[in-house]
Amino acid sequence: MSSKEKLKIIPLGGMREIGKNITAFECGEEILIVDCGIAFPEDEMLGIDLVIPDVSYLTKNKSKIKGIILTHGHEDHIGAIPYVLREFQVPVYGTRLTLALLRFKLEEHGILGTTDLRTVYPGQSEQFGRFNVEFIRTTHSIPDSIALAIHTPVGTIVQTSDFKIDYTPIASEPMDLNKFAELGNQGVLLLMCDSTNVESEGHTMSEKTLEATFEETFRRAKGRILVTTFASNIQRLQQVFEASAKFNRKVALCGRSIDHAFKAASAEGYLNIKDDMIVDIDKINKYKNEEIVILTTGSQGEPMSALSRIASSEHRKVEIIPGDMVVISANPIPGNEKLISRVINELFSKGAEVVYEKLADIHVSGHACKEELRLMHRLVKPKYFMPVHGEYRHLKQHANLAMEMGMSEEDIFIMDVGDVLELTSHSARINGHVASGRVLVDGLGVGDVGSVVLRDRKLLSEDGLIVVVMTARKRRATS
Amino acid sequence: MSSKEKLKIIPLGGMREIGKNITAFECGEEILIVDCGIAFPEDEMLGIDLVIPDVSYLTKNKSKIKGIILTHGHEDHIGAIPYVLREFQVPVYGTRLTLALLRFKLEEHGILGTTDLRTVYPGQSEQFGRFNVEFIRTTHSIPDSIALAIHTPVGTIVQTSDFKIDYTPIASEPMDLNKFAELGNQGVLLLMCDSTNVESEGHTMSEKTLEATFEETFRRAKGRILVTTFASNIQRLQQVFEASAKFNRKVALCGRSIDHAFKAASAEGYLNIKDDMIVDIDKINKYKNEEIVILTTGSQGEPMSALSRIASSEHRKVEIIPGDMVVISANPIPGNEKLISRVINELFSKGAEVVYEKLADIHVSGHACKEELRLMHRLVKPKYFMPVHGEYRHLKQHANLAMEMGMSEEDIFIMDVGDVLELTSHSARINGHVASGRVLVDGLGVGDVGSVVLRDRKLLSEDGLIVVVMTARKRRATS
Repeated sequence: MSSKEKLKIIPLGGMREIGKNITAFECGEEILIVDCGIAFPEDEMLGIDLVIPDVSYLTKNKSKIKGIILTHGHEDHIGAIPYVLREFQVPVYGTRLTLALLRFKLEEHGILGTTDLRTVYPGQSEQFGRFNVEFIRTTHSIPDSIALAIHTPVGTIVQTSDFKIDYTPIASEPMDLNKFAELGNQGVLLLMCDSTNVESEGHTMSEKTLEATFEETFRRAKGRILVTTFASNIQRLQQVFEASAKFNRKVALCGRSIDHAFKAASAEGYLNIKDDMIVDIDKINKYKNEEIVILTTGSQGEPMSALSRIASSEHRKVEIIPGDMVVISANPIPGNEKLISRVINELFSKGAEVVYEKLADIHVSGHACKEELRLMHRLVKPKYFMPVHGEYRHLKQHANLAMEMGMSEEDIFIMDVGDVLELTSHSARINGHVASGRVLVDGLGVGDVGSVVLRDRKLLSEDGLIVVVMTARKRRATS
Repeated sequence: MSSKEKLKIIPLGGMREIGKNITAFECGEEILIVDCGIAFPEDEMLGIDLVIPDVSYLTKNKSKIKGIILTHGHEDHIGAIPYVLREFQVPVYGTRLTLALLRFKLEEHGILGTTDLRTVYPGQSEQFGRFNVEFIRTTHSIPDSIALAIHTPVGTIVQTSDFKIDYTPIASEPMDLNKFAELGNQGVLLLMCDSTNVESEGHTMSEKTLEATFEETFRRAKGRILVTTFASNIQRLQQVFEASAKFNRKVALCGRSIDHAFKAASAEGYLNIKDDMIVDIDKINKYKNEEIVILTTGSQGEPMSALSRIASSEHRKVEIIPGDMVVISANPIPGNEKLISRVINELFSKGAEVVYEKLADIHVSGHACKEELRLMHRLVKPKYFMPVHGEYRHLKQHANLAMEMGMSEEDIFIMDVGDVLELTSHSARINGHVASGRVLVDGLGVGDVGSVVLRDRKLLSEDGLIVVVMTARKRRATS
């Protein structure tokens, strides 16, 4: 460890959640990128499909970049890869399931063949220039999630990424808590830790606790069962398959992202099911109602998703039959409450029974609550702390939690997008700021819609417009 | 009771919540209207300010109307009065606080002098043609709320309107449960009952339970305290005044609706405070920070509200000072989560401490949970049941609750807007449908924006537009 070296950590993007979608680690002439995700548009971004991070700082420094490490396969961590790879081609590292999910995306963008994908394994490590990175198994709402221990010339950085501490996970191994303890004993310069659930007391329930709820729910069902959840929640899919097998039901998949997740997870061995469990969605009518489960997308009420179209009778293949039971195994992401409520109302009015979070414990979160966060702080015992993965309110609460546990305020850094945290082996401070922000994607257009266009769209949407057409004839002034 | 008479009950409007904003009771040549409220526009209603019920059925039958009874002073029960009175002038009945709040609205529309307002009192009754209506004291998130027992030629209808069972209310009397019991003993033909909180187990907490939280919160505050809540929640205002007095703080009011609510409640004796408690918002700088409480609008993050403008430094009179404590004494109404979150983020980033529902028990609901609903069903023992005040999902759950308590499905009626429930003394069935729906108000325009305009606004907002202008010269075809 040299005392002259400096490490810069820069959260990029322009999302509400800081330090989540993409973060740069820069030391001398080397940059390592962690994650590369999208955000979903805010209500006022009329006509915008998705939001990607502004990576102009990285583009300017592209010769320094050693690679991009993806911590897990969620959209807000991998979704911007096809856009960012247009700016610079670098190797992309991820676990097996993460890369399997990424491949569908690369294929859609026609760049699967030209992208350098490299598989990493929890428990192993990799050298990126002078960065040595250990991949640590965590538990989250998608299997094959990892945290990172980034050993740098100034010290060790632990980035937890999204996690919960699930002692009894489904379809994946438990979290490698001992590795965090070992790192803590060796000395950690900076902890970067998930803040999503910092407002919740206690400990997030294990995925395993849903087993009983699914069984009880399936036992009650007399007709077909439709289950919706986040497509990438492979553990949840496994639970649905297990409950289906127990009650002698076949499972049909409905919706593109469920299809992709199923294929990726099956190919990589993350789903453990019998081949004859699956029936084609076109063939469900050959079975009795009580022999069928339909696994569908649309747990957030997204208007174009399979479940929304089924609820509004606009789906080509599936229609609600009175007596169907619909299980919504997800909680609304803030902002989606009304969309979901509309779908629930429509399902009820078509005669389905609907089981959702207000009525039953049919979902568990993928993020650590306060007690789990306290455990992480105690194990890692960092010198400095940067709360990440949360809106400002969450980062602030996470800072409070760290202070309650004994850290002093000056050792905690709440960053804004583009802020540069400069670390030496014995100091840390926010020093400087690089241009960053969000880039709006509207169909095929990337970055061509800015705030002026959005303002115009808002005005148009609220007031309409008047077009005045005049024809004027130029007449010579004659005497 | 004549066996030939028929009573029709028709929920009008076109809101997501059924039977809430306006309901017609029709018997022979007489119509009685209960409530007359607005709804707030859905996200896709671009540029729309508010939504009022389509009352064309009532306008056609205006000679039959005996009056409008308002059950309490919330916008979704009184807000459409100025618009509906343009169609037909009839007397408007309400309790003292309800009418005091309505007067501000009538004044803004310039029709205070021409409106026939008649005060009613809980515990009393009034004759409306052949309808005899008893006004029953309830408890809710606004004082002076009433339920109605409508004695009609075919039997007694109990309409609870919005309520919770608060055994220890603040600034108001307890609910008259004995009256519901008495009615139940005499025989009730139909119960119409609030369904808002039917998805929640247990019993809603009393307003009184917040006393301790407010005290503890005020004790911790070192600088100014800003409190936001629903303006019409007079009980909550009273609690804020009491906590302020206890800690020797003065209170300044900030925002028009808080101002109106304060004036109405003070004039009618629903607030019990010393005159010297109030300071003008322009004079708060004459006091030390620890001597001031600011009561402000904006608990739902509404972009034009005082708190939102304070948070984004756009308020003319109040700026956040580091060390301020902001108490958000309200829960987000579904759909407002992101707006509120944005305000919380801004307040934190300006150095305020923010206390909100995720962190502290700083709000209680105004609606009955399952145990209270069960009590109401047991007391009233109705022959027929119509769940009201809820989206379809809530009505459905409330029907389930009634069935669990022993009612049979054919005695329960889940209505859609415009459906006609036809009752005789020994029968009930949905028979017929009248045209109704929602009327959109855009600035001064009432009903001139329809679905085609909204579709155009949506297209304009998402895709923009292209205007092609061509000039053509007509030239004679000459040989």
